[in-house]
Amino acid sequence: MALSKKPVTGMKDILPAEMQIRDYVMNIIKENYKKFGFTQIDTPCVENIENLSNKQGGENEKLIFKILKRGEKLKLETAESEADLVDGGLRYDLTVPLVRFYSNNVSSLPSPFKALQIGSVWRADRPQKGRFRQFVQCDIDILGEPSNLAEIELILATTTTLGKLGFSNFKVRINDRRILKAMAAYSGFKEEDYDTVFIILDKLDKIGLDGVAAELISSGFAKESTDKYMSLFRGLSEAPDGIAYLEGQLREVLEPDVSAGLAEIMDAVNSTVDTNFEILFDPSLVRGMSYYTGTIFEIEMPVRKYPQTNILHSYF
Amino acid sequence: MALSKKPVTGMKDILPAEMQIRDYVMNIIKENYKKFGFTQIDTPCVENIENLSNKQGGENEKLIFKILKRGEKLKLETAESEADLVDGGLRYDLTVPLVRFYSNNVSSLPSPFKALQIGSVWRADRPQKGRFRQFVQCDIDILGEPSNLAEIELILATTTTLGKLGFSNFKVRINDRRILKAMAAYSGFKEEDYDTVFIILDKLDKIGLDGVAAELISSGFAKESTDKYMSLFRGLSEAPDGIAYLEGQLREVLEPDVSAGLAEIMDAVNSTVDTNFEILFDPSLVRGMSYYTGTIFEIEMPVRKYPQTNILHSYF
Repeated sequence: MALSKKPVTGMKDILPAEMQIRDYVMNIIKENYKKFGFTQIDTPCVENIENLSNKQGGENEKLIFKILKRGEKLKLETAESEADLVDGGLRYDLTVPLVRFYSNNVSSLPSPFKALQIGSVWRADRPQKGRFRQFVQCDIDILGEPSNLAEIELILATTTTLGKLGFSNFKVRINDRRILKAMAAYSGFKEEDYDTVFIILDKLDKIGLDGVAAELISSGFAKESTDKYMSLFRGLSEAPDGIAYLEGQLREVLEPDVSAGLAEIMDAVNSTVDTNFEILFDPSLVRGMSYYTGTIFEIEMPVRKYPQTNILHSYF
Repeated sequence: MALSKKPVTGMKDILPAEMQIRDYVMNIIKENYKKFGFTQIDTPCVENIENLSNKQGGENEKLIFKILKRGEKLKLETAESEADLVDGGLRYDLTVPLVRFYSNNVSSLPSPFKALQIGSVWRADRPQKGRFRQFVQCDIDILGEPSNLAEIELILATTTTLGKLGFSNFKVRINDRRILKAMAAYSGFKEEDYDTVFIILDKLDKIGLDGVAAELISSGFAKESTDKYMSLFRGLSEAPDGIAYLEGQLREVLEPDVSAGLAEIMDAVNSTVDTNFEILFDPSLVRGMSYYTGTIFEIEMPVRKYPQTNILHSYF
């Protein structure tokens, strides 16, 4: 056989020594999430292209590995755009398939439904160090539970799992997309601009507050809105209780139960005995996808080996 | 989100109850193969298109899910054939990736190398009942061991695993591709026709010996070759020891160590205490792929629920 020896760009072979570690880690994750009552499901790696391209996946939609129509369905000579050639795509996350799975199988599932998924996802990212085009995601989701109990349980299940894996002293940063939006509304940004504003705000840890302000201005946003936005963040940095401060500032644009809910979640988590982490309100936490509408959180962990801080994303 | 609720054609959602059974089965398979000294590896689901299309994969190469080139590499207006549009494909088995893996990593692997792979494969089969377009294969392979010990170990590892899964009283059918070829050579078929002859022979259990003869004739093969081929099979069915019979008949076209080797493997397996199966020489056993060159085996198990016989394929 004349073979290319290397794996395709951005994907990797896993040798026995690494496979053992992965297997060990996966088993701990699986066991622990199952103890929290999550049940494992699986969906096909190939998903309907309409589901992958419905504008909910943000930037990831540009990174879909698309699958060619086959045989009689492929009409190369009359194809005018890529869409004429494509049938399906490799999933870029486990959330889009979960939403489809849930609507397809809801009548056979308990309510609330606590789902655990462990599976590969694919993103046709530009080749660069440390970025893989195939990687594994471990997702837990609770569907059909409107109360804050769902968020509390997701945070405790995730942090307990990290503890079982030997991690400690990490930080859970928590926010609510409704607070994020209310801050933008209060400052006078238009709703259609929120995503652009949030993409800039998301660079806060790299470029600082002044950098964010400069980039908002240079992107064409009004100085007035930018100043108002910055003054909110400056006020926050001086306030002893960030949630209470925002509740005061945003009372015109935010229902009070949002901030009360967030405070409740943090209190419940903090009252748990033996936590190995700190939970912090972070009003600049954005998370990428536009399908997040309520509470969002992210776990930050200082990694000793490297100078920079490593963020472990928790998807939910 | 406006979503297609159903999974893509030929693939399926796995609900918690089925997932638990799969997990249970996979763990038994994994544990048992590891006891036999196999170490698990993993390869990307996407493989270089040249590796998938190098004519070793037989019919499966017609069933590749091909992945579209992206962005600047896609030149739709100048594309003259499908090949201009394609970068990679989903693996249709775990053997092609294993061969690439081995040549890529041989310097970091022990010799002999005993590999265990559990992973999904994809085949764009026509939609039909009981055929899936994504399914899991569990492969064990031994690389770098020229002796029959490799075959003996593969058979014992496979059958022990089936035993642990609660199966018993199955049959291991064994053959050697060199015997298969020698029988065709002895009958006067041309080497370039072997694959066509074997595809017809492979229908033996469905259409019987007369059916095979009729199809060979109607496919244009010489009556003389067909008759000679049939007489070999008829002689076999009357011989008390099939291997010894063929050794006599094929002495001009088959090195004697092939049949001696096969007899050795069967003796070694039969001398194992507590086998839960029968091992049979089956000179009509073909196995699909042209990359098999030596010993081949297949496990047959009567499944009570359905009237037909179900074949559990063991790939190696």
